[in-house]
Amino acid sequence: MFVNTMPRYEILSADSIAVLERGWRRIVSEIGIQFAKPEAVELFAKAGQQVDGDVVKLDPDFVLEQVAKAPREFDVQARNPAHNVHIGGDHMVFSAVYGCPFVREGDVRRDATLQDFRQLASLAQAYDELDSAGGVICEPNDAPLDSRHLDMIYALQTLTDKIYMGNVVSGPNAADTIKMTEILFGGLGGAGRTSIERTPATISLINCNSPLRWDDRMLDAQFEYCAAGQPVVLTPFLLMGAMSPVTIPAALTQQLAEALSGIALAQLIRPGCPVIFGSFLSNIDMQSGSPCFGTPESAIGLLCTGQIARHFGLPFRTGGGLTSSQVPDAQAGYEALMTMLPTFLAGANWVMHSAGWLEGGLVAGYEKFVVDVEILQMLQAEFTPLEIDEGSLAFDAHTEVGHGGHFLGAMHTLERFRTCFYRPMLSSSDNYERWMRGGGLDAAARATTIYQQKLEEYEAPPIDDAIRQELEEYVVRRRAELGD
Amino acid sequence: MFVNTMPRYEILSADSIAVLERGWRRIVSEIGIQFAKPEAVELFAKAGQQVDGDVVKLDPDFVLEQVAKAPREFDVQARNPAHNVHIGGDHMVFSAVYGCPFVREGDVRRDATLQDFRQLASLAQAYDELDSAGGVICEPNDAPLDSRHLDMIYALQTLTDKIYMGNVVSGPNAADTIKMTEILFGGLGGAGRTSIERTPATISLINCNSPLRWDDRMLDAQFEYCAAGQPVVLTPFLLMGAMSPVTIPAALTQQLAEALSGIALAQLIRPGCPVIFGSFLSNIDMQSGSPCFGTPESAIGLLCTGQIARHFGLPFRTGGGLTSSQVPDAQAGYEALMTMLPTFLAGANWVMHSAGWLEGGLVAGYEKFVVDVEILQMLQAEFTPLEIDEGSLAFDAHTEVGHGGHFLGAMHTLERFRTCFYRPMLSSSDNYERWMRGGGLDAAARATTIYQQKLEEYEAPPIDDAIRQELEEYVVRRRAELGD
Repeated sequence: MFVNTMPRYEILSADSIAVLERGWRRIVSEIGIQFAKPEAVELFAKAGQQVDGDVVKLDPDFVLEQVAKAPREFDVQARNPAHNVHIGGDHMVFSAVYGCPFVREGDVRRDATLQDFRQLASLAQAYDELDSAGGVICEPNDAPLDSRHLDMIYALQTLTDKIYMGNVVSGPNAADTIKMTEILFGGLGGAGRTSIERTPATISLINCNSPLRWDDRMLDAQFEYCAAGQPVVLTPFLLMGAMSPVTIPAALTQQLAEALSGIALAQLIRPGCPVIFGSFLSNIDMQSGSPCFGTPESAIGLLCTGQIARHFGLPFRTGGGLTSSQVPDAQAGYEALMTMLPTFLAGANWVMHSAGWLEGGLVAGYEKFVVDVEILQMLQAEFTPLEIDEGSLAFDAHTEVGHGGHFLGAMHTLERFRTCFYRPMLSSSDNYERWMRGGGLDAAARATTIYQQKLEEYEAPPIDDAIRQELEEYVVRRRAELGD
Repeated sequence: MFVNTMPRYEILSADSIAVLERGWRRIVSEIGIQFAKPEAVELFAKAGQQVDGDVVKLDPDFVLEQVAKAPREFDVQARNPAHNVHIGGDHMVFSAVYGCPFVREGDVRRDATLQDFRQLASLAQAYDELDSAGGVICEPNDAPLDSRHLDMIYALQTLTDKIYMGNVVSGPNAADTIKMTEILFGGLGGAGRTSIERTPATISLINCNSPLRWDDRMLDAQFEYCAAGQPVVLTPFLLMGAMSPVTIPAALTQQLAEALSGIALAQLIRPGCPVIFGSFLSNIDMQSGSPCFGTPESAIGLLCTGQIARHFGLPFRTGGGLTSSQVPDAQAGYEALMTMLPTFLAGANWVMHSAGWLEGGLVAGYEKFVVDVEILQMLQAEFTPLEIDEGSLAFDAHTEVGHGGHFLGAMHTLERFRTCFYRPMLSSSDNYERWMRGGGLDAAARATTIYQQKLEEYEAPPIDDAIRQELEEYVVRRRAELGD
């Protein structure tokens, strides 16, 4: 996995952080946070917090005491140990796009299907730059609503041997995720694996219904996962102008109030439960109300979020290949990088939506998937520290080549030419004549060929037959119970 | 003009800088630099440097003594004082693409013409994000070769009232640039302007014929400009693998040796002559030999260059909207930003190729021009420091909106909604239905409409009739002298 030991780019002064600190303290204590689940409110009440209906007014110091119980770093195990991940510190984990109702292939935009889900999961498995296919990559609209989470988990477990995200639509869905994960990992540490309670094997996204409200179904899922010791990514969902005020500092304080309150709850459910400080922060277009991605505001928010999360000693989630663009065009290219480069500058630990995001997240794009993997590859190369020593200066190459010559045939070049530079999979540097002979295809058109070939070459990672059978039986039984 | 007071992103340790220091010292003293102009060699010989034919072996401490004579910051005046620029410190100057033999409009790629030159100069005038149209935006292939520099300078002087770059094809071309600049600025400080000797009014790009060789025609131009006190951008032209070794540290030491030797020469010609430490650093594809842009290597080189230039107290040039892509597609979008975002992180003072660069610089793209201006706009917004104080936290908006509501109609929002967020000119966040109703156009197709409309709305900045006439007479006379 990728470890980012390059410097962090930090833009907040100590004074600014102190202002933000006062801000979230005031929100949680004076306005409070709404928890639409009585068990959550009860936990806070028992812990001495002031409760008014389903609104909890939190003592900020109590919140910080809870937050301090969360581990600074933790592991998530994959069924292939080579794909285990470490979350926190300098480690960065990348997962595919999440939650798209539609897909785009070339000029066709249509409802996503289970076959799309499987193909996108396979692509995520096939690209080394991705550590996970994520969870709900796209909505399998052709699968029954009540049981499609089973299809998705089964696909993630069998088509990939990387870590995967749990379903969060309801408590029972979360329970299914955990049970299937226990089957895959051989119950309590069987099949040479660590028990999923000792080393978590799934990680789940719990979104806040911002502003300042945690919803019942998400909380049901959070209770299941936290009780089972499986990490949760507690993410304020902030499109400034709609779910938060229009100023970045206001959004950052709200984000702190929401994320820290969710993390405190996780620690009340199970002290020491691994959590991630989540951020999903952008803005709407104030004329149309449409969400905008890859904006300057989101990049600034992202950089600040990293610094704030480190201030609290928490691993954090942000970033991705976000764009508002409807197609994988120039806008999609620059907007994706406009978020992804700051993601690396901030050293985000958990990066969802790293490949495939189009149209504000409504569409999983096959071609965009390839564009994003290329961007990831480039940034992983760029954020690898440069080694500078006498040997790297190649003085002898200069004595060999002299003035006005060229280095193409120099010994120093010949020894290194195969690996010296980043080699793109999508980007073309062909001269015009060669490019025209190749059909004059733009990046999106070339990406079609690339993902199709990758799917053709895809091989499912091997899985123990008994485990596969047990998973299948579980899916069949639960599907019947759910009436599908 | 844009002032970048955000932090610099620096990745070199003091130890690394010391290694690079030893590297350039060894190159200039042991291998030496070739100057293909006897007057240059003579200046170095007179100053006590060791000369062997046209190769000068330089004492590194002598080089630094010369470099220390260059101003850390300086001004360049425009005929419209509102467009004067300051070069150095936190100031960033952006100019359009430079030197393209071809243009691309939509699907058409063709030889550039004088009409293209005029249109691109007009676009550079029209966009506030650009401080200059640059110099040889594109080659006016339909104008006579010997006198087209006159057409270009005249177009830059009359179609724009921003600063412009001088012609560097030969010494006489440079002399023409200076004379026409004197006419425009009213001789010795007439028409309310400062003498161009006291405050320079043109700035010129002197490329090194890397490795380690300064060519005669470029040197002829440098002698003219430096003698007239007009700044020069001394730029090693390094495509790693061809003009420099394949390791970044080697390229950085070579860049230092070349740029510092050129700067030393400028100071010998005229002590105190304003200079810019130039960098044009990328790599070739080792399979095809094609130049690659927007690569991880070029971004790393760029960040290091900024740090090195600051180490020597010199304003520096690097960056731009570079790409290898043949068309304004996703690749063009991410590659342009892959260079331009580090350009801002490094705080480059002089940024050529900020708009319009396509196909490795062979093509000036009209649509790409618009893509790049959008990127510039976004980054200028992003690199504006965030103000964080109690007022920005919008606590009252939270008390107004409460839990699970929205901020669309909040007082805090209504007071700020017109200006609170970056407003794109090209990027679309339209929902799918609206986007389809608008024709389902990608960013490149939308850019066509945008640049065409900008050209329609273009108004030439007013110019004194007498000055215009004097310029025209100069052009006619010189064209006749040159036999065209």
